[in-house]
Amino acid sequence: MSLTVVGSIAYDAVKAPAGARERMLGGAATHFSLAASFFDEVRVVGPVGDDFDDASWETLRTRGVVTDDVELVEGGKTFFWSGVYSENLNERETLETELNVFEHFQPKLSDAARACDVLFLANIQPDLQLQVRELCGGARFVAMDSMDLWINIARDSLEKTIRSVDCLILNDEEIGMLTGLPSTLEAAEELLGWGLTSVVAKQGKYGAQLYTAEGQFALPAFPLKDVIDPTGAGDTFAGGFVGYVAAAGGEATHEVLVNAMAYGTALASFNVQAFGTERMPQLTPAEIEDRVATLERITRFEHRAVALAG
Amino acid sequence: MSLTVVGSIAYDAVKAPAGARERMLGGAATHFSLAASFFDEVRVVGPVGDDFDDASWETLRTRGVVTDDVELVEGGKTFFWSGVYSENLNERETLETELNVFEHFQPKLSDAARACDVLFLANIQPDLQLQVRELCGGARFVAMDSMDLWINIARDSLEKTIRSVDCLILNDEEIGMLTGLPSTLEAAEELLGWGLTSVVAKQGKYGAQLYTAEGQFALPAFPLKDVIDPTGAGDTFAGGFVGYVAAAGGEATHEVLVNAMAYGTALASFNVQAFGTERMPQLTPAEIEDRVATLERITRFEHRAVALAG
Repeated sequence: MSLTVVGSIAYDAVKAPAGARERMLGGAATHFSLAASFFDEVRVVGPVGDDFDDASWETLRTRGVVTDDVELVEGGKTFFWSGVYSENLNERETLETELNVFEHFQPKLSDAARACDVLFLANIQPDLQLQVRELCGGARFVAMDSMDLWINIARDSLEKTIRSVDCLILNDEEIGMLTGLPSTLEAAEELLGWGLTSVVAKQGKYGAQLYTAEGQFALPAFPLKDVIDPTGAGDTFAGGFVGYVAAAGGEATHEVLVNAMAYGTALASFNVQAFGTERMPQLTPAEIEDRVATLERITRFEHRAVALAG
Repeated sequence: MSLTVVGSIAYDAVKAPAGARERMLGGAATHFSLAASFFDEVRVVGPVGDDFDDASWETLRTRGVVTDDVELVEGGKTFFWSGVYSENLNERETLETELNVFEHFQPKLSDAARACDVLFLANIQPDLQLQVRELCGGARFVAMDSMDLWINIARDSLEKTIRSVDCLILNDEEIGMLTGLPSTLEAAEELLGWGLTSVVAKQGKYGAQLYTAEGQFALPAFPLKDVIDPTGAGDTFAGGFVGYVAAAGGEATHEVLVNAMAYGTALASFNVQAFGTERMPQLTPAEIEDRVATLERITRFEHRAVALAG
């Protein structure tokens, strides 16, 4: 299998209760790529400026991410985001978003990137997502993310793009905004009616839900003592989720997706235990398998009925 | 087994997107009793005024709840709460709280109530909870709830009461407030150090987590299309949870508590599908078992490893 992702490669500045970083490697496509790199060869598509430094290239390449499709914009500056987290990490405030090289980004995919078996459209303007989706006509499994901004200002484009993919991975509040339905279950059924074969509702620190034609699956987040920085958790989840589907041959059966949920959850849990992308290059396959096994154990129960009084 | 609960019996007025009720039977002890009544004989302790009407007595008695320890205060008025839910049900605002007969409540337990095997201390002033706990010295399993108010104004009493029981069932934010620890896992370990044998962290519409000396268990909420009124969901969860422990003989092993979590979750999910206590008198054991079986199915996964790249 081959896996292509298109999206932002960024520098982030973050303040959190555990500390701060002035400038760390980030961006949706970066977080996705590093997580997915455990499962398959990942080709990342996105623009950077000439401020993109050697250490950042090195981080991507250490995990074997193919960077041939990263577009280096001469004289440009890499996308920059800064934000601050609340004391309990439940809220975050964006301080600055500088689109920079992303402002005029037009995805240009190499033949190798177009020939992918599995494609992830990270959160960018939905018309661009659709262009990329159409360039990758042979992909067996296409998943996408989005955000409240596009629901508000580009709803028609977004709906058209969603109708062109297999799987939507979105925060549960955004699923509510998109459909106007407060019940995530009801909203997911509506979205399956748009032609999707699966819908993943991310619930932040609480977990995630999966909906397919075969049914539903709900998985809590992995309980942690040391949450340092939630930045990129959703994209890391997507990297583990989509990566698992690629490793399983791109056939997104309910059973494959259920395991993909567990791997996505495990990867995301490692990601939040350090700032930015700092954990991923240190992570080992054994640690991932161990965490998925623990997740299986702490979420499993055997239904034991007792005599109930009618 | 015999089960005693002490707490509020109330009338509630609720406004929610699906409709409103001007005056419906409510209160923590009421919701708890109705849910627990599927598992065991429940004796409810709490005061009501002489406005407490026949239909309300009837609701409790239809489910076999023993009301001998309900104290009828002549000339008094039953506890009253009113609140309004936001459009997506994620927030609620309290409009009015009239303590009424609850203001001078001093629990007086009959011999039968004191002789309980299992005891639940619903959310009331912690010194009163401790008095009741001490009256029921023979109980094999004692669980309690509380709220942010008591953490803020009666922390020492609350801590003393918590140290006298087996199981604390509390919202995850309140667990964070109580311990000063943002990680629920870390907070639960701290609380187990207080002498508790189990801690349940309620996460509202997202689910609940269990922590014991043997480990942890995390269970998502049951996905629903029709959430009508979340009032009493937490107490209904507690009724199913504690009721299951009573039905299992009061021996709160990790395995028993894991199933108790599932029954609590199932009961709570029925409760929110109608206003106030309206669903419980209609509910059947078969419906409960069916929902627990579904919950088992939609939360289960078999860990299937794939080849990961180091």
